[in-house]
Amino acid sequence: MPTVNAVIATSATDPLTISTIERRELGPKDVRIDIKFAGICHSDIHTARNEWKGTKYPVVPGHEIAGVVAEVGSEVTLHNVGDRVGVGCFVDSCGECAPCKNGDEQYCEKGVVQTYNSKTYEGEFTHGGYSQSVVVTEKFVLKIPEGIELDVAAPLLCAGITLYAPLKKWGAGPGKKVAIIGMGGLGHVGVKIAHALGAEVTVLSQTTSKEEDGKRFGADHYYATKDNKQLFKDLAGQFDLILNTVSVNLPLDDYIGLLAIDGALVELGVPENPLQVAAFALLTNRRSLSGSMVGGIALTQEMLDFCAEHEIAAEIETISADQVNEAYDRAVSSDVRYRFVIDTATLASA
Amino acid sequence: MPTVNAVIATSATDPLTISTIERRELGPKDVRIDIKFAGICHSDIHTARNEWKGTKYPVVPGHEIAGVVAEVGSEVTLHNVGDRVGVGCFVDSCGECAPCKNGDEQYCEKGVVQTYNSKTYEGEFTHGGYSQSVVVTEKFVLKIPEGIELDVAAPLLCAGITLYAPLKKWGAGPGKKVAIIGMGGLGHVGVKIAHALGAEVTVLSQTTSKEEDGKRFGADHYYATKDNKQLFKDLAGQFDLILNTVSVNLPLDDYIGLLAIDGALVELGVPENPLQVAAFALLTNRRSLSGSMVGGIALTQEMLDFCAEHEIAAEIETISADQVNEAYDRAVSSDVRYRFVIDTATLASA
Repeated sequence: MPTVNAVIATSATDPLTISTIERRELGPKDVRIDIKFAGICHSDIHTARNEWKGTKYPVVPGHEIAGVVAEVGSEVTLHNVGDRVGVGCFVDSCGECAPCKNGDEQYCEKGVVQTYNSKTYEGEFTHGGYSQSVVVTEKFVLKIPEGIELDVAAPLLCAGITLYAPLKKWGAGPGKKVAIIGMGGLGHVGVKIAHALGAEVTVLSQTTSKEEDGKRFGADHYYATKDNKQLFKDLAGQFDLILNTVSVNLPLDDYIGLLAIDGALVELGVPENPLQVAAFALLTNRRSLSGSMVGGIALTQEMLDFCAEHEIAAEIETISADQVNEAYDRAVSSDVRYRFVIDTATLASA
Repeated sequence: MPTVNAVIATSATDPLTISTIERRELGPKDVRIDIKFAGICHSDIHTARNEWKGTKYPVVPGHEIAGVVAEVGSEVTLHNVGDRVGVGCFVDSCGECAPCKNGDEQYCEKGVVQTYNSKTYEGEFTHGGYSQSVVVTEKFVLKIPEGIELDVAAPLLCAGITLYAPLKKWGAGPGKKVAIIGMGGLGHVGVKIAHALGAEVTVLSQTTSKEEDGKRFGADHYYATKDNKQLFKDLAGQFDLILNTVSVNLPLDDYIGLLAIDGALVELGVPENPLQVAAFALLTNRRSLSGSMVGGIALTQEMLDFCAEHEIAAEIETISADQVNEAYDRAVSSDVRYRFVIDTATLASA
């Protein structure tokens, strides 16, 4: 099997190292992608460090993949050599169940095959995008439109769809007030997309340190939440939709109280402890506490096309493959504006 | 001011007693209703016993009121003397805010005036339906259609609308699977309405002791949840909508796990402790934990008309006014099938 260089986690505590992994031989419906850039998502860190348990080592993280088609299998019809393409959080699903048929592959009843730390239906252990190349069945390969550079496109494959899906699902658009909690890798893309959809966008961040950026990305309002009880009184009952991009346990009742009638607060991350909410806060104004997990393939393509049309991309800091460990530490302390992206060309000389 | 007999709570711990209260003089837009029947809702008990705090004594509970119009003010156009009418959980709202204009008076931004233990905008303290008569502004008086007897109509004014509103809001109907947790005063009406709406109805009750009734009311399936971990595996991912009528803290993750994609578990009561749910349970299948509080006036009328058309009414046990204390104790221990209703004619001789 073809061997390629990759950034590999070998245990929960050891630094990631550069070594080699095997990729499968190209099947008739497979596409081999020369990876150009791979975004660093917090999920990668959680997995590499086994913070969600269940990590099988060695594993190559990375599900924000952008590259170019290097080779296609004999039956491939969707992609051609040289196409600019991307791969997101999953690389296969059963295709037969109701969710798959409805374009919700991420909720596949047989269990979606994740891009890394997962098993394909054939038993292969999956490795992600911190690598020189990857082989993916054609249906799970997205087209990256002209007009988005590959480096800033990469984070859209997870961060972009994670925000786009709930914004569309819960009807963000003209006349709607949307708040986004947190302005990191997810939140900053959410601000751009929500603004492009025509919603009135508010950022709720701990401090106003990123206010200037937020407004440049399209936020109409930007508030610091830290030690600011008054804010929650002033904004009570205002928002149709609140997207929570922060994966720590927040005082949810405060935020739920900001929702208008039929408003929803949608959790996009998984904090360590259970969510707690007063029933009365939900009964009032018929509110919902909801969750959303990335989005299906068709919606991801729609998101990429939407982003190209509206000139939306991630704000990134590009790093070389040997800087991943440092980048992990900085990402955990929110010291990045706004997403680390690995230039995988730096793996060639490794 | 007119004096009428009523069942009165004078403290959190003393038994309710029969005494007199004053009702306001009839204003130009007021309707005086001779109350015939008043249902006993758990909210009445919570309020009488100050379990939600904030009870002002003395107070007359009761917001499931059915009676006959005895007198109308000079400007009343909606009702006539002799009309069969009902009053539910609230008796006034500002009429000017967005929720009021959208028919969501229960979420009035100025604060809805509740039928008892509340203050009108004029400063009058409200007393509820355990009484011989009540004066209510005409807009908050519902018409009880021919075809529903007043005694079995009374509980629809709270229990009926509490179930009808979320069933309509979340689209219960043909092809939808609806589960109802608990088959008490709320749940049994919910089974009937959900069935009439065309949904496939499942009751999730602690035991199967009421299974025969449940199926007679229209349940397609009836399951005992107590010590039945296997049930939650068997039914995982099945339901489009789950209505929780039980006001105790349940292991919510188990129930959330029963929801299909885009499914919602809607809380209708207020348990003592905060609701707890794992974020991952919501992210999976894009689920929601929601709340709903009764329903607006127009929807309540729609519900009454729907119930008349489908021959739906509450199952009741009629009691005299001097049996209220005993009924409270029995209601708390779920010893009623399915709603106590006070025959207020028994107040005349008190």
